[in-house]
Amino acid sequence: MRIEAVDFFYLSMPEVLDVGDGSQDALLVRVAAGGHVGWGECEAAPLVSIASFVCPMSHSACKPVRDSVLGQRIDGPDDIRRIGDLTRAQSLDLLQAEHTLSGIDMALWDLLGRVRGEPVYRLLGDRVATPKLPYASQLFGDDPATTYALAQQVRRSGYRAAKFGWGPYGRGSVADDALQVAAAREGLGDEGVLLIDAGTVWLDDVALAAARLPALQAAAVGWLEEPFISGALGAYRALAQRAGAVRLAAGEGCHNYSMAEHLLHHADLGYIQIDAGRIGGISVARRVAEAANAAGVTYVNHTFTSHLALSASLQPYAASAPGAICEYPVEPRQLALDITRSHLLPDADGFIRLPEGPGLGLEVAIERLAPYLVDVVIEVRGRTLYRTPVLMT
Amino acid sequence: MRIEAVDFFYLSMPEVLDVGDGSQDALLVRVAAGGHVGWGECEAAPLVSIASFVCPMSHSACKPVRDSVLGQRIDGPDDIRRIGDLTRAQSLDLLQAEHTLSGIDMALWDLLGRVRGEPVYRLLGDRVATPKLPYASQLFGDDPATTYALAQQVRRSGYRAAKFGWGPYGRGSVADDALQVAAAREGLGDEGVLLIDAGTVWLDDVALAAARLPALQAAAVGWLEEPFISGALGAYRALAQRAGAVRLAAGEGCHNYSMAEHLLHHADLGYIQIDAGRIGGISVARRVAEAANAAGVTYVNHTFTSHLALSASLQPYAASAPGAICEYPVEPRQLALDITRSHLLPDADGFIRLPEGPGLGLEVAIERLAPYLVDVVIEVRGRTLYRTPVLMT
Repeated sequence: MRIEAVDFFYLSMPEVLDVGDGSQDALLVRVAAGGHVGWGECEAAPLVSIASFVCPMSHSACKPVRDSVLGQRIDGPDDIRRIGDLTRAQSLDLLQAEHTLSGIDMALWDLLGRVRGEPVYRLLGDRVATPKLPYASQLFGDDPATTYALAQQVRRSGYRAAKFGWGPYGRGSVADDALQVAAAREGLGDEGVLLIDAGTVWLDDVALAAARLPALQAAAVGWLEEPFISGALGAYRALAQRAGAVRLAAGEGCHNYSMAEHLLHHADLGYIQIDAGRIGGISVARRVAEAANAAGVTYVNHTFTSHLALSASLQPYAASAPGAICEYPVEPRQLALDITRSHLLPDADGFIRLPEGPGLGLEVAIERLAPYLVDVVIEVRGRTLYRTPVLMT
Repeated sequence: MRIEAVDFFYLSMPEVLDVGDGSQDALLVRVAAGGHVGWGECEAAPLVSIASFVCPMSHSACKPVRDSVLGQRIDGPDDIRRIGDLTRAQSLDLLQAEHTLSGIDMALWDLLGRVRGEPVYRLLGDRVATPKLPYASQLFGDDPATTYALAQQVRRSGYRAAKFGWGPYGRGSVADDALQVAAAREGLGDEGVLLIDAGTVWLDDVALAAARLPALQAAAVGWLEEPFISGALGAYRALAQRAGAVRLAAGEGCHNYSMAEHLLHHADLGYIQIDAGRIGGISVARRVAEAANAAGVTYVNHTFTSHLALSASLQPYAASAPGAICEYPVEPRQLALDITRSHLLPDADGFIRLPEGPGLGLEVAIERLAPYLVDVVIEVRGRTLYRTPVLMT
C-alpha cells in the first residue's frame, strides 16, 4: 500500500478558556492507504501543526512533513519507523514537525492494525495488555475547599488514585501550597494514591521546589510531577536527593527520543511520562518504554485529551507489570468525549483495559464532530495550501 | 515604551532548491515601540513561525507567541529577558514558539540599541568587540574535483579558514568521503583552517562516524561538526574519545538553553555553535556563551542566512579572545545579501568586525525586498489572523 491522503481536522470547543486544560481543542489526523484509513491525534497548537505539514520547503533539511509521508509505502511496522526517520531528517530544522509526525505515526499504527485485524500493542510485540490503575487527572481548585470537594468527588467516583496540578499551585506561598496538598489528601482519604503536578512552575529553581517537600511528604504524595522544565536535568537530580519517598515524575515535554533518554539517565526520576501525541507518536514512545524498563524508571502515559489519544498513549507500555498506573483525564470537555464512539471506561475492579479491536480499537465519531470543526484556510502566493476538509460521515 | 506592533515578512527566492542552503528564504521580524523599530530574523520555516505567533490559544500553557509580546513594556534589557521567560511559560506546549521568539528577541535588542545609541554587545555588558576570523561556510561539491575548485576559490578570495559540509558527505562510502576531505584540504592549502560539517548524517551511530576519523586526522581537520543529532550526547562523548586532535562541534540544533547546557556538560565538545535565530534569540545565546566560557568550550556562531542574522549571532560573544573564528556564509543567495543595505565584509586583515552603529548596526533594505515578499493569508473561522503586511519604504 501507499499513503494516498493525510487529512487534518482542527476541532475546538466554542470557547477556549485560559486554564491548564488540554482537552479544549484537538487536531485529528486521518491517513488513507490501500482503501483503509487510520486515525491519530496531535497534541496542542493545531494551526501550527497543520502549517508544518503544508509549508513550503526552506531547504533540504527543512521540508514540510508532507514530503516525507505522502506516497510512502506502508506495508508493515518497519515502514512506519522508516517514515519517522525520514521525517526527522528532512524536517530537521522544522521544530513543530515532531508534533505533526506524532499524530501521523498514531494513524499509521491504527491503519496497519486494521489491515491486519490486530490491536496495535500486538504489532508492537506484546502478547497481552495488562489492566492499568487509572489515576484521575485534574486541575487544583482555586482554593483548598474546592480541591477538597474535587478529591471527595474523585473518591466517590471509585478512583483509587488521583493527580492534582496546575491552577494556583506553586504560584502563591509555601503555606498556600501546603493547604492545597493537605486538602487533596483529606478529600481523597488515607488510602488513595495522591500525585501532584507542578506544571514546570519553578523552571529550574531547586530551593523553591524543595520548600514544598515537607508538605508533600506529610501527605504521602507518590510523585511530584514537573517541578522544573524538561531540560533542567541537574535541578531534577538535586531535588530527587532531598525528596525522600516522594519520587519525581517528568517527560510530557519530550518531543524526541533524546530528550527522554536524557531524563532517564541524568534526572534521577521515579517515573517518566510520555505523550505519544508529542514525542513522535507510538513508535518513539515505545522506544522510550523499552529504555525506561532497562533504566529501572517506571513508564506512564501522559494524556489530557481524547480516548483516541488515550488508547495511543497506552499501547507503548501495554504489557507493563500488573497494577501499573495510567493517566486518565477525568474531567475532559465534551469535545474530547465526542471524538470517539466508545470510551475506555474503568471495569468493575476500577481498571482500564486496552481495547482488543484492531488498531487503536476505537471508532472516530465523525458524525458528532461537525459542530467542533474549525474552518482554516492557509494561502501562500495565492495558492491554497490547506483548507479544512469536509467531514464525510 | 510598550510594544505596539510585531510584523513578519516572509521572503523567498523565486525557486527554493532541494539543497542544504539555508539562505533561500528568510523570515524578518519588525518590532515597533515608542516610535522606534528594531529588526530580527527567525531561522527556517517562515510559515510555521508566523502561525505560532497568531494561532488560537489551545490552553493556558499553549498560547500564541503574540500573547506574550504585544503590549509588553520594553524599557531595558531585563524587559527583553522577562518577555522571553513569559513566552516560554505561556507557549510551553507550542514547539515552534522558540523559533518565533528568536527573531522577536533580536528585534527587541536592535530596538533598544537604537533607542540608547549603543551597539547590542555593549547592552549585553561587553566593552569592546574583538575581530573574528571568518570561516567560509559552504556546501561540498558533488564530487571531489568540484570541492577542490571551491576550496581554491575560497583561498583565492583571501579566507584563511573554510568549512565544507552536507552534499554527498557521509552518504557514500568511507573512501568517497576521504577523497572529498582530501580535495578540500588540497584546494585550501596546508595552512588554511579546514572544518568539516556532517549535518547529523550518522544520527547516533558512532562506528559510522569513527570510520571517517583517519581521513579527517590526515587532513588536519580542526573540527568535525554535527556527526550526530543534537541529543545524541553519549555518541558525541564516545566519538570524542577516539577523535584525537579532531575536535567535535555541535549546537546549531539547540532551540533552548537546556539543550546547549546538555551539550556543554555531557558531549565532550571542543566547540558549541549557536544560532541566535533558533535558540530563543540573543538573550539565550548570550547565556550559552557565558556557560561555554565557564565550561572551557569555545563558542561560535551558526549563521547561514543574512548579515542581519550574522550581526545578531556575533553579538553574544563579541568580546571573545582575539583570533576567535566565526561562521561566515560565503555563497548566500541574492535574497540574503539584499536584506541589508551594508554588509559585514572582511577588513584588510581578513577579519570580521561587528558594526559600531546602534542596535545590530545594519539597516534593513526595505526598498529591495518587494520582489522576494511572499503573500500569505491565514484565516481561522473566517477571521484573517495573518496577512502579509505592506512593505512601507
